[in-house]
Amino acid sequence: MFRHVAIIGLGLQGGSIGLAVQACLPGVATSGYDISPQTRARAAERGLVSQVCDTPEDAVQGADLVIFCVPPGAIGPVAQALRDAIRPDALVSDVGSSKSSIAAALAEALPDHTVIPAHPVAGTENSGPDAGFASLFQNRWCIVTPPEKTDLLKLSALVEFWETLGANVEIMDAEHHDLVLAVTSHLPHLIAYTIVGTASDLEEVTRSEVIKYSAGGFRDFTRIAASDPTMWRDVFLSNKDAVLTMLQRFTEDLTALQRAIRVGDGEALFSHFERTRATRRSIIEEGQDDARPDFGRGDHRRNQR
Amino acid sequence: MFRHVAIIGLGLQGGSIGLAVQACLPGVATSGYDISPQTRARAAERGLVSQVCDTPEDAVQGADLVIFCVPPGAIGPVAQALRDAIRPDALVSDVGSSKSSIAAALAEALPDHTVIPAHPVAGTENSGPDAGFASLFQNRWCIVTPPEKTDLLKLSALVEFWETLGANVEIMDAEHHDLVLAVTSHLPHLIAYTIVGTASDLEEVTRSEVIKYSAGGFRDFTRIAASDPTMWRDVFLSNKDAVLTMLQRFTEDLTALQRAIRVGDGEALFSHFERTRATRRSIIEEGQDDARPDFGRGDHRRNQR
Repeated sequence: MFRHVAIIGLGLQGGSIGLAVQACLPGVATSGYDISPQTRARAAERGLVSQVCDTPEDAVQGADLVIFCVPPGAIGPVAQALRDAIRPDALVSDVGSSKSSIAAALAEALPDHTVIPAHPVAGTENSGPDAGFASLFQNRWCIVTPPEKTDLLKLSALVEFWETLGANVEIMDAEHHDLVLAVTSHLPHLIAYTIVGTASDLEEVTRSEVIKYSAGGFRDFTRIAASDPTMWRDVFLSNKDAVLTMLQRFTEDLTALQRAIRVGDGEALFSHFERTRATRRSIIEEGQDDARPDFGRGDHRRNQR
Repeated sequence: MFRHVAIIGLGLQGGSIGLAVQACLPGVATSGYDISPQTRARAAERGLVSQVCDTPEDAVQGADLVIFCVPPGAIGPVAQALRDAIRPDALVSDVGSSKSSIAAALAEALPDHTVIPAHPVAGTENSGPDAGFASLFQNRWCIVTPPEKTDLLKLSALVEFWETLGANVEIMDAEHHDLVLAVTSHLPHLIAYTIVGTASDLEEVTRSEVIKYSAGGFRDFTRIAASDPTMWRDVFLSNKDAVLTMLQRFTEDLTALQRAIRVGDGEALFSHFERTRATRRSIIEEGQDDARPDFGRGDHRRNQR
């Protein structure tokens, strides 16, 4: 499949790929680079890749698979700087949460290389070199978005790579990916960031009260809103059109519920609230979330019963 | 403190109170009633209270503490029907998520009784007689909202009752409670219900895709949106003004972020996203959420590393 995987960017995604390759593909060499010296030092300590390099050129040297794990806005410039260092026959991929604009940036930066963008739909709210773990991709989906006229041998190698790391792979075109992720990931993050900000800015309710009574639902949003700000800034800027489309739908629906509350239309509220349960059930049935109440976080308490 | 606790409504809250009293106050009698015969049968099987009664009048017979655990909209009528059955010297309380309108309804229904409303800020997305567990209130806040001129002996007995069940008690006036919970609980639920509905109604993205890629953030919202529809209808109707106030702030903030995305203002996005992390840290430091990534739900996978 591949003999040497180079990872540029050693945060949650890059670190997890490095650990997963070492765990699942023992014969494959791993090298990596991160722009932060602290991250490189910590990556070496944790052994995220077998060789942490001091320059990105050294990291990609000889690699037949190069994966960019930097924020979406940095992928174009970083790829361009490595144009001559990446082997001409190497496969270049990434893990960005938006795909159309990243695909365009990579194609422009590396016109003579084979580029197949990808997006593992897996993560936690943590970031940096301490956040990664080898099993991050187990039973999660990885969406691969090959451009037209992709080298099919390289595509199937990339699919096999992600499957070996534990992921289920889906092939999709980049535009559709961006629409799907706008609703399943980008809009939820935007809303979570918004409400946590709103709660912090209130004058009538103190910050301490918001913290104390957050178990009423608010605390769930704070987890998502603790995600990496640089990455999320770039996600929204790089998937602007799809995010704005989904946001428009959301705002319309919220306005309808707001009206139902204002006029006291209990039937409208009930019928809306009732049908959303089915979605939760399906997500649990498909193994995409924990079936335990509260995601299982209260289990140590519940076990006392 | 109390010798006999009667619980009207044997769902998540009522069932948990019954189990907690039996666990933490072994000498205290417990009786209960639910309008659903199926719930009563299941409550008896699980032993949620020591005596499940066939009428609410039987359940409150002789009790010196009566707790209404029915949806907010039902509390007034149910209390009124029990006016003559509840002991004149009994303390009457509840667990509703809104307090001003419930306090008014209880005062009108039971003008000659001592009424002290309360709200344990604890729960899961599950409801019904199988959802409760004795440790639900451990290290959670319970907000008690005594009306003016409350009997201080009865108030301190109610505070001691909740503390014995493991809760930390805070005294607050009902209006302020409603504003605080509007932002920490009611608005998050409204937003979660909205986005899960929005995602279900899309034409460009299939339901199956929404389910498959929900790990990008959306799945968190589906948990909250799986909460009891009847209860939440009543919460929004009974705390209308505070919810609409908070919703207005949220919409303003969302519009500002929408504009930042549209005009490509990365700095505005970054500075907003960066400051929301501190709230998450505080919630974890105060013991109001699990510090493990992803609420700990990936732990069985993470342990493989």
